[in-house]
Amino acid sequence: MRWFALTIAYDGTQYGGWQIQSNAPSIQQHLMVAIEKAAGEKVHVQGSGRTDSGVHATGQVASIHLSNWRAAPERLVLAINRFLPRSIVVRSAREVVEGFDAIRNAKSKRYRYSIWNARVSDPLYDKLHWWFPRPLDVEAMQLGASMLLGTHDFKAFETLGSPRKTSIRTIYDLPVKSAPYLGGHTIEIEIEADGFLYNMVRNIVGALCEVGSGRFSPHWIRSVLESRVRDSCSQTAPGKGLCLVEVRYPESCYLTPNTDAGSEG
Amino acid sequence: MRWFALTIAYDGTQYGGWQIQSNAPSIQQHLMVAIEKAAGEKVHVQGSGRTDSGVHATGQVASIHLSNWRAAPERLVLAINRFLPRSIVVRSAREVVEGFDAIRNAKSKRYRYSIWNARVSDPLYDKLHWWFPRPLDVEAMQLGASMLLGTHDFKAFETLGSPRKTSIRTIYDLPVKSAPYLGGHTIEIEIEADGFLYNMVRNIVGALCEVGSGRFSPHWIRSVLESRVRDSCSQTAPGKGLCLVEVRYPESCYLTPNTDAGSEG
Repeated sequence: MRWFALTIAYDGTQYGGWQIQSNAPSIQQHLMVAIEKAAGEKVHVQGSGRTDSGVHATGQVASIHLSNWRAAPERLVLAINRFLPRSIVVRSAREVVEGFDAIRNAKSKRYRYSIWNARVSDPLYDKLHWWFPRPLDVEAMQLGASMLLGTHDFKAFETLGSPRKTSIRTIYDLPVKSAPYLGGHTIEIEIEADGFLYNMVRNIVGALCEVGSGRFSPHWIRSVLESRVRDSCSQTAPGKGLCLVEVRYPESCYLTPNTDAGSEG
Repeated sequence: MRWFALTIAYDGTQYGGWQIQSNAPSIQQHLMVAIEKAAGEKVHVQGSGRTDSGVHATGQVASIHLSNWRAAPERLVLAINRFLPRSIVVRSAREVVEGFDAIRNAKSKRYRYSIWNARVSDPLYDKLHWWFPRPLDVEAMQLGASMLLGTHDFKAFETLGSPRKTSIRTIYDLPVKSAPYLGGHTIEIEIEADGFLYNMVRNIVGALCEVGSGRFSPHWIRSVLESRVRDSCSQTAPGKGLCLVEVRYPESCYLTPNTDAGSEG
């Protein structure tokens, strides 16, 4: 038996999300079918976590174990990709220690949220960002974001209906960056944390945009956080601007080097 | 009567090209219908040139003239965009001198061609680039590209079937740039010229990739150019990697300032 961690990119537009479900196509289902064809055996595909409908990934990680695979991990990548639709690709594979589990062994995850901030929309990248036509003050958003760094109870940024044992999480990094482009700005908000509550990134982004558009001051973010009540908070940013860019694991999990030369991390 | 130059962006994926045609949806047709609804009068939409099926634009320019429009050009932008699909957007409008013609008055055009150079494809930007899995030597491509700068007979880079009066054109700029991204490289080739022959950018890109992949030396580009025969040349790069990014006109054409703050130019 050999264990592998696969790094996966996908365009989530046409999918009901990562997880296998009865009423919509899923990324997990496509991967399972493709791996079974490539490896010639039944497989369980364990993602690092679910992504919702419309959410993208450049660095989702899934763990699998195979009884019959004899070739190098790079060959596995090419073999699986032959059976995947264009919207899903395995970027790399690394052999990992026995029992490796993409969800249980994850140390942290990093998401990127992209906002297209201009009076007119951008047709070329429409499916990859949230079009926000009112001007956004990036410095105010940066100040608001800084209030969320560290270990807090993020209950105010959790969408109800999917409760976790605890709503305490640690945010390690939360940069808000702006790049001028084509008469507007692409604003990218990245969040790296040890874990996320349901819709946490999209709720934080929605709140930061309330600050950026001038409806609330940056210090309002702290009062929302401290309220620990979702109701006091603002809109949920749409899924299509969200992308899972990296999942980190302890180096000791890996038996083979990272062949994805330009990987983010 | 007032005359306007519209700057237009579009995702060309779903279209048969810029020009109105009987058997496929076109960008020109959508614009004509949207402008007629916005302005309440019949209109002729003259593009700076055709783009082929699947080709994109961030800076296509079209000229129109209207009898009844009284408001500022910015209002025209918002009015037209209300009637366009998400894949087409008018980015800005400038009032121009009487008789302005987007095709006849153009001084130069700039195209960008995007190549995704990695062993595995990239699902998020698939419709915006050409996936070229073999490694490309960007420096060799730069050397090859430099041989095309200036005024030449570009007949060897013209696809047959659409002859022009002359095949002499002047290329002002032809940078080849590489940006590391997600385990691969995005290679961008831009070409600015006073005009283009049919498929000229895509044929030049195809030839530069023959050089980049090591099949021919950079000096082969010069021998192709000097042969003035299309047959001796290489593949035509696919339309989806191509984007019309800018059309330049003499400043004296414009009566109102450029409101597209971040425009490329």
